[in-house]
Amino acid sequence: MSTKQKRFFLTEEEIPTQWYNIQADMVNKPMPPINPATKEPLKPEDMYDLFAEELCKQELNQENAWIDIPEEVRDMYKYYRSTPLVRAYGLEKALDTPAHIYFKNESVSPVGSHKLNSALPQAYYCKKQGITNVTTETGAGQWGTALSYAAKVFGLEAAVYQVKISYNQKPYRRAIMQTYGAQVTPSPSMSTRAGKDILTREPNNQGSLGTAISEAIELAKNTPNCRYAAGSVLSHVTLHQTIIGLEAEKQMEKAGEYPDIVIGCFGGGSNFGGISFPFMRHNILHGKNTRFIAAEPASCPKLTHGVFQYDFADVAGFTPLLPMFTLGHNFMPANIHAGGLRFHGAGVIVSQLLKDKMMEGMDINQLESFEASLLFSKAEGIIPAPESGHAIAAAIREAKACKESGEEKVILFNLSGHGLIDMAAYDQYLSGSLHDYEVSEEEIRNNLEKMEKYI
Amino acid sequence: MSTKQKRFFLTEEEIPTQWYNIQADMVNKPMPPINPATKEPLKPEDMYDLFAEELCKQELNQENAWIDIPEEVRDMYKYYRSTPLVRAYGLEKALDTPAHIYFKNESVSPVGSHKLNSALPQAYYCKKQGITNVTTETGAGQWGTALSYAAKVFGLEAAVYQVKISYNQKPYRRAIMQTYGAQVTPSPSMSTRAGKDILTREPNNQGSLGTAISEAIELAKNTPNCRYAAGSVLSHVTLHQTIIGLEAEKQMEKAGEYPDIVIGCFGGGSNFGGISFPFMRHNILHGKNTRFIAAEPASCPKLTHGVFQYDFADVAGFTPLLPMFTLGHNFMPANIHAGGLRFHGAGVIVSQLLKDKMMEGMDINQLESFEASLLFSKAEGIIPAPESGHAIAAAIREAKACKESGEEKVILFNLSGHGLIDMAAYDQYLSGSLHDYEVSEEEIRNNLEKMEKYI
Repeated sequence: MSTKQKRFFLTEEEIPTQWYNIQADMVNKPMPPINPATKEPLKPEDMYDLFAEELCKQELNQENAWIDIPEEVRDMYKYYRSTPLVRAYGLEKALDTPAHIYFKNESVSPVGSHKLNSALPQAYYCKKQGITNVTTETGAGQWGTALSYAAKVFGLEAAVYQVKISYNQKPYRRAIMQTYGAQVTPSPSMSTRAGKDILTREPNNQGSLGTAISEAIELAKNTPNCRYAAGSVLSHVTLHQTIIGLEAEKQMEKAGEYPDIVIGCFGGGSNFGGISFPFMRHNILHGKNTRFIAAEPASCPKLTHGVFQYDFADVAGFTPLLPMFTLGHNFMPANIHAGGLRFHGAGVIVSQLLKDKMMEGMDINQLESFEASLLFSKAEGIIPAPESGHAIAAAIREAKACKESGEEKVILFNLSGHGLIDMAAYDQYLSGSLHDYEVSEEEIRNNLEKMEKYI
Repeated sequence: MSTKQKRFFLTEEEIPTQWYNIQADMVNKPMPPINPATKEPLKPEDMYDLFAEELCKQELNQENAWIDIPEEVRDMYKYYRSTPLVRAYGLEKALDTPAHIYFKNESVSPVGSHKLNSALPQAYYCKKQGITNVTTETGAGQWGTALSYAAKVFGLEAAVYQVKISYNQKPYRRAIMQTYGAQVTPSPSMSTRAGKDILTREPNNQGSLGTAISEAIELAKNTPNCRYAAGSVLSHVTLHQTIIGLEAEKQMEKAGEYPDIVIGCFGGGSNFGGISFPFMRHNILHGKNTRFIAAEPASCPKLTHGVFQYDFADVAGFTPLLPMFTLGHNFMPANIHAGGLRFHGAGVIVSQLLKDKMMEGMDINQLESFEASLLFSKAEGIIPAPESGHAIAAAIREAKACKESGEEKVILFNLSGHGLIDMAAYDQYLSGSLHDYEVSEEEIRNNLEKMEKYI
């Protein structure tokens, strides 16, 4: 046991006042999203009916490295930020490693994950523009929860389409969204044409994220003063999440260290980019050599096994075409508990960075992620979200490598959320009924071959 | 929206290094616990087979106002302490009150409540004495969770008897305890004579807290190197919880204010005493006039409707006789969701203080507590435990009184835990299926008349 400092905070005055837009500093800029109808590069105004205008501009901004955080958003960040940077002495001891392990604890947000960092500005920009309603989809519910609360804060009505099977099987998250005042509708529903079409054909359809996205987008497009809000993948979402890494940078300074390795779990890229980009800036501009590891599920391995090509971000093909590492938008990921990582593609920024070898992917099996989460729970007391368990597993691999080599590396990972609403998954792990899902190289190739080349 | 400071923290160096033992400063000391066999005042050694020796000494210590917190415990406190003192600007705005409302956010503890503040020292003192096993009972599971984690930290084995109906109906908390490595047994069980006796008579018995306590105590007494650990009621538990109020005192100083009213919800008294006693010290010693309000459920109103007499702390009558405000140890509280407040009596310190009018009780109905929790969730983002909802309801009553009178009082309450594992209760409230449980004056008198006068 150590008497050295365990947790590092920033004062409210020290909390960053700008987000970091890595697009401005990238040597090779991301290729442009494409309007699938015109095959022309997307302009901000092409998306004005879908997102608040300010968000559309942020999405495509390759000029400004620093974007001011509106004062109203900074005021709300104070409700839970700075989040603690924690030296994981307990985990180090359990692993008997010479590595210094730190984690940024985003699970202390009132909604239990980093998702609120982007839900707040998205709701704020909508409010500022005179929008009255926001809508989104949610699977297990982390993103829906964050948007429900953010909408309440800024006086917007929120409508969340939740995948029907989750709506029924995970009533806790639904109740949390309703406690914040959101309208939660199981999807498919009779409230949209997309939903009606499915239910007419198949009354007992249990829903999918793809359908829920379609319903939310349809509602946004057909409702006056309503916009859609995205929980990951898009560049403006990752921009907002850089508050994580910007804080961590100042906190690491207080700890007197600088990370050799930065790790985030990877679904669409917003939490990974959030913790990584502020440090990657110093690789690009100041010759630092930090490694950046995106920990993805072995059952949905777009970074380690996907291809780089233009693809849709949704199953139905409603979104612009994005240049991304993808398994194909028709890829159906296995039903792992880390629902937030079950996405076929990577955001455009991360995809370019991976192509340029500025970062690396690491695939983690479900059982390894739960084994890591259990070790972490016992050592540090916090039960991680199944998604975050992937980052922990990657950190443990690196810490064990340090033990082998005797190197005293500094490892920083993002604890993106807690797992208190996911205890059914832990229960399954503890009772031995969880298993891994393998996806073969052949399966991936076959799936990709079925896809059109859009560009 | 305000740009003023929202949250107040202490540096790790500023975290208090001693607990506050109000017994030493009380004008009228608590009357002694009585050994029911001998009818003599209890001595520390009478309890050595039940609790770690250091805890037995703390229990009866009326000499020392300040007790050093062992360095090993302080090291572990750093994992989550200081907890934030939060200015509830959102709640103030929602109530349009001139009152300044602050809350101490104990929900950020890794186990989700203040219970860890005492679980850690209890496990530590056991370890130090060479004890290898600890045991306790738990209903919904807040205390069992805290002890499971604390035992893991100090390398002890933990056995938790969980009331069978909760074990089956609330698998999330059971899974949390198991994740920390505890053995969780549904009570009644075949592992004790108390359990066997019941199951032999009634195989489908669903258990009660009283039975689970009996099983845990029996296991502790019959197992070499095993001790029982108490989650509330006892004076040494409240002593450990004073870390809450001692931190809050320093944090209020940073906020430049001093509370006119301090509020805690009330089950056995440990969280109420924890936040109150360090401030009450200044009423006793320095002429301050702060009001202290213990918010208890209207369905279990020992402070507002009970009598002061010697009574047992458990249903079966295994414990020493305690001088307490009680509804009778055979009182069966209604099945409200605030399970932690379903206790028939008050600890000996609080009972003496109430008798001496140093504090007051306030009874809150279940529906009022959930209405308060919902308002708080929307205004501050944090979903409170049903227990904490009682403190919030009391704070709201006082804040509304300030609006009436125009007074700018400073109100401080303890947010003892979050409600993320209790969303089923919120679900019921939102769907209109929750109701109040009244308990009549007559019912209470009848129950008390059935009890013997033990002393």
